[in-house]
Amino acid sequence: MSPPSSDRTLINIIGIPGWIAIIWLGGLVYSGFMALCALIGLFEFYKMASLKGVSPNRYVGFSLSILILLYYWFSPQMSETIFIGFLIMGIMWLLIEELFRNLPDAVGNMSYTFFGIFYSPLLLGTSIPIRQFDSANQISITFALIVSVWACDSAAFFFGSHWGKKKIFPRVSPKKSFVGSIAGFIASLITMNMFYYFGLLGTLFTSYDIFIFSLITGVLGQIGDFVESLIKRDAGVKDSGTILRGHGGILDRFDSLIFAMPIAYLYIQFLDLI
Amino acid sequence: MSPPSSDRTLINIIGIPGWIAIIWLGGLVYSGFMALCALIGLFEFYKMASLKGVSPNRYVGFSLSILILLYYWFSPQMSETIFIGFLIMGIMWLLIEELFRNLPDAVGNMSYTFFGIFYSPLLLGTSIPIRQFDSANQISITFALIVSVWACDSAAFFFGSHWGKKKIFPRVSPKKSFVGSIAGFIASLITMNMFYYFGLLGTLFTSYDIFIFSLITGVLGQIGDFVESLIKRDAGVKDSGTILRGHGGILDRFDSLIFAMPIAYLYIQFLDLI
Repeated sequence: MSPPSSDRTLINIIGIPGWIAIIWLGGLVYSGFMALCALIGLFEFYKMASLKGVSPNRYVGFSLSILILLYYWFSPQMSETIFIGFLIMGIMWLLIEELFRNLPDAVGNMSYTFFGIFYSPLLLGTSIPIRQFDSANQISITFALIVSVWACDSAAFFFGSHWGKKKIFPRVSPKKSFVGSIAGFIASLITMNMFYYFGLLGTLFTSYDIFIFSLITGVLGQIGDFVESLIKRDAGVKDSGTILRGHGGILDRFDSLIFAMPIAYLYIQFLDLI
Repeated sequence: MSPPSSDRTLINIIGIPGWIAIIWLGGLVYSGFMALCALIGLFEFYKMASLKGVSPNRYVGFSLSILILLYYWFSPQMSETIFIGFLIMGIMWLLIEELFRNLPDAVGNMSYTFFGIFYSPLLLGTSIPIRQFDSANQISITFALIVSVWACDSAAFFFGSHWGKKKIFPRVSPKKSFVGSIAGFIASLITMNMFYYFGLLGTLFTSYDIFIFSLITGVLGQIGDFVESLIKRDAGVKDSGTILRGHGGILDRFDSLIFAMPIAYLYIQFLDLI
């Protein structure tokens, strides 16, 4: 969901320098910040679930999320059997706790508890190993992805609000237009190619890879936006949270990255680079 | 939930020889059979979810479950990054499909879809690598676990129905008694030690490990029974399904193994044997 133009500008002025510093610093600062955002996103998801009358088990949800985020932080060194172990123990712990909670809608409570973990920490957490990949190779794919998503959002908003008549998916998100979306994708493509051209993505990628990354930020990023709208619509709220003082919540701000980061992560793995 | 004694006997007479043959054969016969049971369990879970008014996305649910079961089948040879990849792609596919389903309770539909995958295929699927571990080491931990769970169930039923006055957890499962549960655990302990004594578990385990395995079948197995009762109670049904012609469904029959197998699997991994 797009907040009005003035709000968006304000967020940009306040947030962008800090955000750039955090990405530039990388390491524990960046990973800790992203982990915190993923956990706040989970908190927002559980709050929306509560509005639907579900009682997620926050204790299990946050504990398992922290383990998953730690797994991402240590992932180059850590066996992934550990990941499956976390998942198995998490679900069994959840099932056992629910026996004793004595709340209505037991299966709903457990289902939402788990789904939140997957929507926020599992997906957004992939931004941690991507930044580590950057450090290992002296490149800035993290910057490229984030700037490209931001360029897509901005171009879509600008072109959409001026020339966007035909709406894409009014049932889910009433404002998004075809013109805006196409402009957004083109902006992603240009941004990503500029990062490539100026050598910020090193020599590991081909121009074909760069096109794939543009699809990831310019198309999947926009789908992530629709998905977040669907989740908010389902809970009957306009914003996922209020942590950004009236400018929405973490899930609102990171909805595109929630979709772009995991697929970029899998694509880099598919190229056998991580 | 325990069906009446005569039904239980009938199932045993028909099913036990076939079941023993499948476990003994191992390989693709056993793994295919367990995978099928895990998928039928998922089908039963989704049917119970439908009774609550939720519309799980069966297409995504079964597809991702098959991938997870294939992962377990190939797990010794397969890179485990694949598992996280399956999970990420599964959840994103689910989110995108839900955009277009246009059904009420979108987040509920997605949450139940995922939870079913974790309750049945993720947990029960661990019985596949355990049997492969058996083959690799010429031992029968699979038999030991299954017979031990069966001995626990039978002893709990026999002692419970004769001498079980004080109930453990009548809110969830009205029949289970303290006497039955203790008898069940003792039966597990004896069974597991007999397998060990007769050399069917080889020389990889200490008597301490055998005690742990007894706790897994004799205590966790019984908890699995309560959990299955909770899930059925939540959906307002008496049995999870009717595939065993009036004797309940797969989730009813495998409820103890759903809890015992994954922890046995993790324990064998913890011992660094898989």
